[in-house]
Amino acid sequence: MTDKQKLIAPRLPRGFEDRTPGEIAAVDAMIEKIKAVYERYGFDPVETPMFEYTEALGKFLPDTDRPNAGVFSLQDDDEQWLSLRYDLTAPLARHFAENFEALPKPYRSYRAGYVFRNEKPGPGRFRQFMQFDADTVGAPGPEADAEMCMMMADVMDALGLKGKYVVRVNNRKVLDGVMEAVGVIDESQKLTVLRAIDKLDKFGVDGVRLLLGNGRKDESGDFTKGAGLSSSQIDSLEKLYVIRDEGRRDYFLLMRDEDLLEDDYLVGQQQAVGSTPVGANVLGNIRVLDYTLEEFSSNESVVQGVEDLKQISRLVRAGGFGTKRIRIDTSVVRGLEYYTGPVFEIELTFPVTNEKGQQVVFGSVGGGGRYDGLVSRFRREPVPATGISIGVSRLANALKLTGNLGATEPMGPVVVLVMDRDETPGYQKMVAELRQAGIRAEMFLGQTKNFGKQLAYADKRNSPAVVIEGGDERARGVVQIKDLIAGKEAAKAITDNAEWKAERPGQFECDRSQMVEKIKALPAVAAWLAGQS
Amino acid sequence: MTDKQKLIAPRLPRGFEDRTPGEIAAVDAMIEKIKAVYERYGFDPVETPMFEYTEALGKFLPDTDRPNAGVFSLQDDDEQWLSLRYDLTAPLARHFAENFEALPKPYRSYRAGYVFRNEKPGPGRFRQFMQFDADTVGAPGPEADAEMCMMMADVMDALGLKGKYVVRVNNRKVLDGVMEAVGVIDESQKLTVLRAIDKLDKFGVDGVRLLLGNGRKDESGDFTKGAGLSSSQIDSLEKLYVIRDEGRRDYFLLMRDEDLLEDDYLVGQQQAVGSTPVGANVLGNIRVLDYTLEEFSSNESVVQGVEDLKQISRLVRAGGFGTKRIRIDTSVVRGLEYYTGPVFEIELTFPVTNEKGQQVVFGSVGGGGRYDGLVSRFRREPVPATGISIGVSRLANALKLTGNLGATEPMGPVVVLVMDRDETPGYQKMVAELRQAGIRAEMFLGQTKNFGKQLAYADKRNSPAVVIEGGDERARGVVQIKDLIAGKEAAKAITDNAEWKAERPGQFECDRSQMVEKIKALPAVAAWLAGQS
Repeated sequence: MTDKQKLIAPRLPRGFEDRTPGEIAAVDAMIEKIKAVYERYGFDPVETPMFEYTEALGKFLPDTDRPNAGVFSLQDDDEQWLSLRYDLTAPLARHFAENFEALPKPYRSYRAGYVFRNEKPGPGRFRQFMQFDADTVGAPGPEADAEMCMMMADVMDALGLKGKYVVRVNNRKVLDGVMEAVGVIDESQKLTVLRAIDKLDKFGVDGVRLLLGNGRKDESGDFTKGAGLSSSQIDSLEKLYVIRDEGRRDYFLLMRDEDLLEDDYLVGQQQAVGSTPVGANVLGNIRVLDYTLEEFSSNESVVQGVEDLKQISRLVRAGGFGTKRIRIDTSVVRGLEYYTGPVFEIELTFPVTNEKGQQVVFGSVGGGGRYDGLVSRFRREPVPATGISIGVSRLANALKLTGNLGATEPMGPVVVLVMDRDETPGYQKMVAELRQAGIRAEMFLGQTKNFGKQLAYADKRNSPAVVIEGGDERARGVVQIKDLIAGKEAAKAITDNAEWKAERPGQFECDRSQMVEKIKALPAVAAWLAGQS
Repeated sequence: MTDKQKLIAPRLPRGFEDRTPGEIAAVDAMIEKIKAVYERYGFDPVETPMFEYTEALGKFLPDTDRPNAGVFSLQDDDEQWLSLRYDLTAPLARHFAENFEALPKPYRSYRAGYVFRNEKPGPGRFRQFMQFDADTVGAPGPEADAEMCMMMADVMDALGLKGKYVVRVNNRKVLDGVMEAVGVIDESQKLTVLRAIDKLDKFGVDGVRLLLGNGRKDESGDFTKGAGLSSSQIDSLEKLYVIRDEGRRDYFLLMRDEDLLEDDYLVGQQQAVGSTPVGANVLGNIRVLDYTLEEFSSNESVVQGVEDLKQISRLVRAGGFGTKRIRIDTSVVRGLEYYTGPVFEIELTFPVTNEKGQQVVFGSVGGGGRYDGLVSRFRREPVPATGISIGVSRLANALKLTGNLGATEPMGPVVVLVMDRDETPGYQKMVAELRQAGIRAEMFLGQTKNFGKQLAYADKRNSPAVVIEGGDERARGVVQIKDLIAGKEAAKAITDNAEWKAERPGQFECDRSQMVEKIKALPAVAAWLAGQS
């Protein structure tokens, strides 16, 4: 390969990335924690392949109106179209329908895996990313939805995010009913309205008002056409999310002390009846729903949706989840997906400093909802289903920012230096002995004979120690062990180069036959070995 | 969805499959064991995405002569071609070249992941399957190759396959040199010769003779054209693999007892000098190589290749690996891949009964070799590299057949039955308490109110117990706990249906407040909880 033109640039296509040992260890540790919660909730693993028939996946990609846009597809030898899965829900529907007779019903499963979006990549937006889903198929009642909300909350607790998240819950039936009630019937207008409400966190009540009305111009001057609703229609719709603006209405509940949960959302001062304090102001899920019902009581869809949400509220309260962790919020839209009932969103509520140094609220790291129509594409009978999906990379990034990514990389290997090319079988024997003792170990395999460069390699590998055996040591039946961690500590105290060379901090000699024991006794190695068993 | 025509068939494209909880648990456990060995050898994880630029992958698919055949490829928005990786080596070369400055050199990494082949699927032949690779990039010497052989052997031991495998080692330089020596120079003829030798296990020495000569007709009458070599050329080539036919030559080594390794390949009776037994006949790696050298000493490539193999033999012996585990075999071809030096093949040597009830030798579950040219496609300087790849599904299948797949599925969840729809918050509270105690638990979420059907569900989920609380129990502040495992045992002893109903084996009553403690005390649950901590 001498011709310059023929060299290929080593690079990845846009939107794809490699993962480093640290990232892999961190995500693996995170996934183990999530898995433990999913299993505790009674879910079992299942895995589907990356490819499905395009027709089996359907056209359910969120936020995409064009059919098949956003999906990687190709034609098979027999002319049938295959696609890489864009989420883990559509393949689950196929799996359930295909194995209908054999599977227990309700069918509870979880799946972690890569999904693919053939979209324009951007910062934090990849074309391959990992999701971690759990679904219950064949469970029609809000009990299954309530369980999803509790499981998401318990996952966040298990990851060390206690007090830093809220699971917000709504019902598509409420949204649909309210739109119906205010006279939004046209399907495309409905989509525009949902999209506008979905922007509440980003643009606030006033910004959404513009998007519901004639439209909104952003800072750059770009104009987004609105839904074209009248002021009175907008006023009515706003009742859905007035609840978010805590100052505007008394939707709190006076709660007795004995009914309070540890993580209830307390507001303002304790109340008193007469001279005795009897409880606290709590943001009450049921109260919020009563208010919604009051405003839209004539709409059947709203009434049904509210009843489901009330049952969810009762169940999560019975499970011990207060309103700080699981909160009814009738403004939640949860994308434009295939949901037919309750929808949930896990939001991280703390501000974080992003890579550009800006303070931002972290926001959604996952969510889900009820999708009763998805399996029915394969089977005649209705098959109700509900599920959640966690964005693994995004959640890992959140944990990184909050210092909750507890995983550490494994200890580096002990490196046996090659002082003499002809003696590699002897060095190999040392390595074999160390490995048999359960210690990560290797012989230096590079081309250089330079001592300093071999040492630099060991440093870069985060090695706890190197073993040195030159001709002199071999003749005397000894080896030198250099404790790189103690050496670094000691080196900080030594500023004189001559002194350094004389002292050789962290280095000691021992009998060749004592090598393994002496290395096992090094603090870093001993600690690592203790952690392994 | 009422129109019959509109139902979509729930099915997977050919060559793809779903994985069940049992398969997932088994493969995960296997991967953990392999990972532990790779890490002990000083390798760190890295992960690359499924997609690469097609030009970065190159045209190195084994056994495929047509460019890009066998690969899933599609064109990106900017007209550039992307492909799904077909192995884990080509992406590693790209990763190393892309991160050349930052990575330690030598660079030791391991990767487990799915690869894709756009080929005709068959039994045990999938279009998506998992590989588990380890590679050392930047290490030119046979020390790095020797380490790969030892690591493969240790992986097999770690998986419980001690004594059931052999790592066979050869060198492409030997094969190339021998072909040169016998006058096979044409590239396409070389390929035909290598393919013929690769069939040694399948067709035996005589079958290969036909393939090296004019050709071979199989049982069905299909004719495979041969390489067209003369008898004397074939005679010379056969010297490469005569070693496999143990009766034909004295290539054994008389070895002193103190030099014998536990896993040396002993042949025949112990030898005696005078009246004193001094050692055993051993299949000697160095002896095999001396024989090869004797036969082809005039060829420079053979001489070089043999020297590498001798050094590998010395190193693995120093590492404590006998000839039963790592054996020089100059007939190993290892596919038509990008190898430039030593090649290795892990073979499972025991016979197994396949799905059709036939006795077969299991054969290869992985291998690898030195590929010094792969990274050089990206960088001007030569970058030597060597690595191994394990076929995860194939190895898992082997472990299944030999009973070494030790993993068990997790305990099923305790199911709280829904005896009364209005009381789900109370049942939910039970579930929450059980989960807080670390026990897998769930409320029955199906539509049926039928007690027997709910019980059948619990059975199908492999539940250790169900909890029953009807109106009567609730009024008395108690629950019924039905130990399903004890119940099944007891049921075996009861043949009379009336007796069964009266006895209700395995079922007992306890105070509601004692529920969690009583369930924790059930033998199956206690055992599972003990295994968790």
